[in-house]
Amino acid sequence: MSETLAGCFCLRPSASDLCFSDPFAPHKARVFHFERGITSMESENETKTLEQEQEQVVNPWEVSAKGTGKIDYDKLIDQFGCQRLDQSFVDRVFRLTSRSPHIFLRRNVFFAHRDFNEILDAYERGEKFYLYTGRGPSSEALHLGHLVPFMFTKYLQEAFKVPLVIQLTDDEKCMWKNLTVEESKRLARENAKDIIACGFDVSRTFIFSDFDYVGGAFYENMVKVAKCVTYNKVVGIFGFSGEDHIGKVSFPPIQAVPSFPSSFPHLFSGKDKLRCLIPCAIDQDPYFRMTRDVAPRLGYNKPALIESLFFPALQGETGKMSASDANSAIYVTDSKTDIKNKVNRYAFSGGQDSVENHRKYGANLEVDIPFKYLSFFLEDDEELEHIRNEYGSGRMLTGEIKKRLIDVLTELVERHRAARAAVTDEMVDAFMAVRPLPNMFN
Amino acid sequence: MSETLAGCFCLRPSASDLCFSDPFAPHKARVFHFERGITSMESENETKTLEQEQEQVVNPWEVSAKGTGKIDYDKLIDQFGCQRLDQSFVDRVFRLTSRSPHIFLRRNVFFAHRDFNEILDAYERGEKFYLYTGRGPSSEALHLGHLVPFMFTKYLQEAFKVPLVIQLTDDEKCMWKNLTVEESKRLARENAKDIIACGFDVSRTFIFSDFDYVGGAFYENMVKVAKCVTYNKVVGIFGFSGEDHIGKVSFPPIQAVPSFPSSFPHLFSGKDKLRCLIPCAIDQDPYFRMTRDVAPRLGYNKPALIESLFFPALQGETGKMSASDANSAIYVTDSKTDIKNKVNRYAFSGGQDSVENHRKYGANLEVDIPFKYLSFFLEDDEELEHIRNEYGSGRMLTGEIKKRLIDVLTELVERHRAARAAVTDEMVDAFMAVRPLPNMFN
Repeated sequence: MSETLAGCFCLRPSASDLCFSDPFAPHKARVFHFERGITSMESENETKTLEQEQEQVVNPWEVSAKGTGKIDYDKLIDQFGCQRLDQSFVDRVFRLTSRSPHIFLRRNVFFAHRDFNEILDAYERGEKFYLYTGRGPSSEALHLGHLVPFMFTKYLQEAFKVPLVIQLTDDEKCMWKNLTVEESKRLARENAKDIIACGFDVSRTFIFSDFDYVGGAFYENMVKVAKCVTYNKVVGIFGFSGEDHIGKVSFPPIQAVPSFPSSFPHLFSGKDKLRCLIPCAIDQDPYFRMTRDVAPRLGYNKPALIESLFFPALQGETGKMSASDANSAIYVTDSKTDIKNKVNRYAFSGGQDSVENHRKYGANLEVDIPFKYLSFFLEDDEELEHIRNEYGSGRMLTGEIKKRLIDVLTELVERHRAARAAVTDEMVDAFMAVRPLPNMFN
Repeated sequence: MSETLAGCFCLRPSASDLCFSDPFAPHKARVFHFERGITSMESENETKTLEQEQEQVVNPWEVSAKGTGKIDYDKLIDQFGCQRLDQSFVDRVFRLTSRSPHIFLRRNVFFAHRDFNEILDAYERGEKFYLYTGRGPSSEALHLGHLVPFMFTKYLQEAFKVPLVIQLTDDEKCMWKNLTVEESKRLARENAKDIIACGFDVSRTFIFSDFDYVGGAFYENMVKVAKCVTYNKVVGIFGFSGEDHIGKVSFPPIQAVPSFPSSFPHLFSGKDKLRCLIPCAIDQDPYFRMTRDVAPRLGYNKPALIESLFFPALQGETGKMSASDANSAIYVTDSKTDIKNKVNRYAFSGGQDSVENHRKYGANLEVDIPFKYLSFFLEDDEELEHIRNEYGSGRMLTGEIKKRLIDVLTELVERHRAARAAVTDEMVDAFMAVRPLPNMFN
C-alpha cells in the first residue's frame, strides 16, 4: 500500500537548487493556519483575554495583529522563545539525509524550531526519533494550507526513515466548532483520506482519532500532564476566559501527550527515551511550550519542533479576516475552473494599476499572492528566480504569473484528487489500526 | 461467586422494626465522607474560594462549618435544592420491594434525595433502573464510613434486582492526592476487594477504574458534558481557584458520565432511556447537580440521587478536623484490640463527668459517639430504643454502652475481614471485566 502511494503527491525538490533565499521576509500575514484545521477566519467569535493586551495574537485559535494585520515573525520568535531555522540547518539536513532539502525547508516556509539541532545531533549518533503531527478535522475539504505540514512531514519521514503518529483531534473540533461527536468522527475519517493521499508509508505511520484512541497509557499521560499545569497557566498560554467551557481547559494535555512515546505502548514500548520531532505551523507552539515545560517533571524528553509560517489567503496577507469565505482559499476539491476563477478574480496582485506603470515600476513582490503561492509550490528554483526578476522588473505581467500559478495549482490539486480517490476505507482502517510497526525504523 | 458473597457483610434489617426515628437530628458533624475516599480531614491544604463566603462548606473535598463545626443538614438541603427523604419513602420502598427497609433508610442515614420518587414511580410501572456509586481510592484500608454507601447500595441492588456500576476514580486520586498512576491503580484494585466483600452480585455489577475504562463511548460523553459547562460554572460549584491544576477542572465530567447509560455500551446498548439512581453521601451532590443541569441538553435523563449524612469521627461531630489521625476512625483492618482501645479511649462520650451526675442527668445523646455509631450499625431497633432510654436516663453507664459498641463493631469488622480475605484476584478480574451482564435485571 505504501508503495502505491509513496511520492504520489509530495512535491520533490530538484537536485540542482539548494538554497533559494526566502522570498517572503518579513513575513506578515493574512493567513490560514496550516494545521489543526482552524483557519484564523474561523475564530472571530472566540473571546480572548490576551487580544486586548498584545499587538499580535498567535495561538491555536487566533492569528491577528494590530495595524496592518501582518504578523511579525521575528517578533513572534522572540515572544515564543523559539529559534530561527537558519541556512546551516538546511545544509546539515542535506548532508545527513543525502537528499535535496524539501522546498519548504530551502524556502524557509519552515522557519523556526526548538531543539531541532538536538534531533539532528542524535540522528548523527545513530539514534532514531519519531515524528508527530496532527489535524483538527473541522471541515470536509482541505485547502492548500492544510496540506503544507503533511507534505513536509511526508518528506521528513522518507528522508529520515522514522515512524510517525498523526493525531486527529475530533474531540477538540467537537468542542470548539460545536459539531456532534458523530460528525467530528466522520470528518476525522474523511480528513484521514486526504492525509493518506499525501503518500505516507503505512508501515511507519499510525493515524489516530482522539475519540477512538484516548484511554489507557495515553489517558494516564493526560492525567500526568494535567497535574502539572494550573488553570492560570493555561489562561496565560491560551487566553481562555471564565466563560469558556471546561472542555477547552481540559484539551491542552490531549495535544501534549503524543509527544511522549509512552502514550503509544503498541509502538514504543520500552523506548521511553525516543525523541519526538513535531512539524507544525507556529500557531501550535503554545501547546508545545506547555508540553516542554512539563516534560522534565514527568521524566520525559522535551519534544523538538520545526515550525512553519502561515499560508496566506488569496486576498493577501493583511487586512481584516473574512469568515467562511470559500473564495479566500484553494481547496483540494476545487475544479480546474474553480482554480482559474479564484486566482484570476481574487488573488491579490502586487502588479501596477496600468500596463504602462507596471512596465515602469514592476510588481511589488512583497504583497503579491501569485508570487507567494509559487514560492510555496513551484519546485523549480531557477524558474522562480526567473519569475522574480521578470515580474519584479515589470517585464512579466500579472496575467502571465497568474497563468503560471493556475497551471501549478491545477496540477497539484489534480494529483491530490487522484491520490485521494485511490484511498479506500480499508486503507484508512490499516493506517488507523492500533498495531505494532515492526519495520518503522528500517 | 455472588452466592458465596451475598449477604456476607451487609447488616440485615430485622423484620419487626420498620420506623425507628432518626436519633441524630439536627445532624451537624465532625465527619468522614462516606464516599470517594477523601475524608474531610484530608482537605486542609485545599484552597477554596467559597470557604470565605459561606457559613458551611460542603463539597467533595471539604466539609466544614463556622462556629461549632456542625453541619446543618436542613440548611444544606435548602442550599443544594434537594429534597428530604421522609417516612413516606421508607414505607413505599417497603411496599414495592416486600423487604424490610435497610437500617440506613429507616434511621434516616440516607436522608435526602433528588427524583427518588420518579425512580419508584418508574419501578412501580415495571421499568427498571441502574445504580451508580463509586469511590476515590486514596487509602489502603477503608474505615467504617467508607463502607456505608456500599452496604446501602448492596441492599438496593438486592431489593430492586438491578445492575450496578461502581466507579473507582483512580485518576482523581492521582491528581488530588499526588499519588503516582501506578499507586492509584494499585489502590483501586485493593479497594475493589473491600467493595466486593460487601457482597455485590457479580452477575449485576461492573466495577471499573477510570485509568482502565476512560475511552470510547465513555470519553465521548465526557466531551459532551465538558462542552456544556463553563469554567465559571465549575468554580461556582466546586470552588476551584486559578492555581488549581487543570486536572481538577477536567474531572467533573468524568464523575458525571456514569450517570448516562450510553457510557456503558457493553451493558446498556439500546437502553438510552434507562434511569440511573446514585446512592452517595451528600458531599457528592455538587457533581450531580452539574450532571442534572447538563443531562437534558444532551437528551439524557437526569440521574436520581439518594443521599446520606456524614459518618462522625470518633472524637465527635464538632471541632477542628485533625489531619490523618488513625485514631479518629475504625478501619476495617483494625484488630479486636484496636477497636476496643479506640472506642474506650477516643469515642467522644455524652456521659456525665461523674457516676453520680450521670445517674442524675443521664447521657447527652445529642453528642454521644457510641450511641451514634450504634444507631448506624446496631440492627435491633428495640435494643437501640432500650439503650436510648437507659443511657439517656443515666441508668446505663458510658462503659456499658462502649462495651456494646465494641461488640457490634468487632463483629462487623471481623465479618468484613473474613469476606475480604475470601476475595481473590480472579474475582476482582471478574467484577472488573468489560462484559455484558445478560441477567442483570432478572
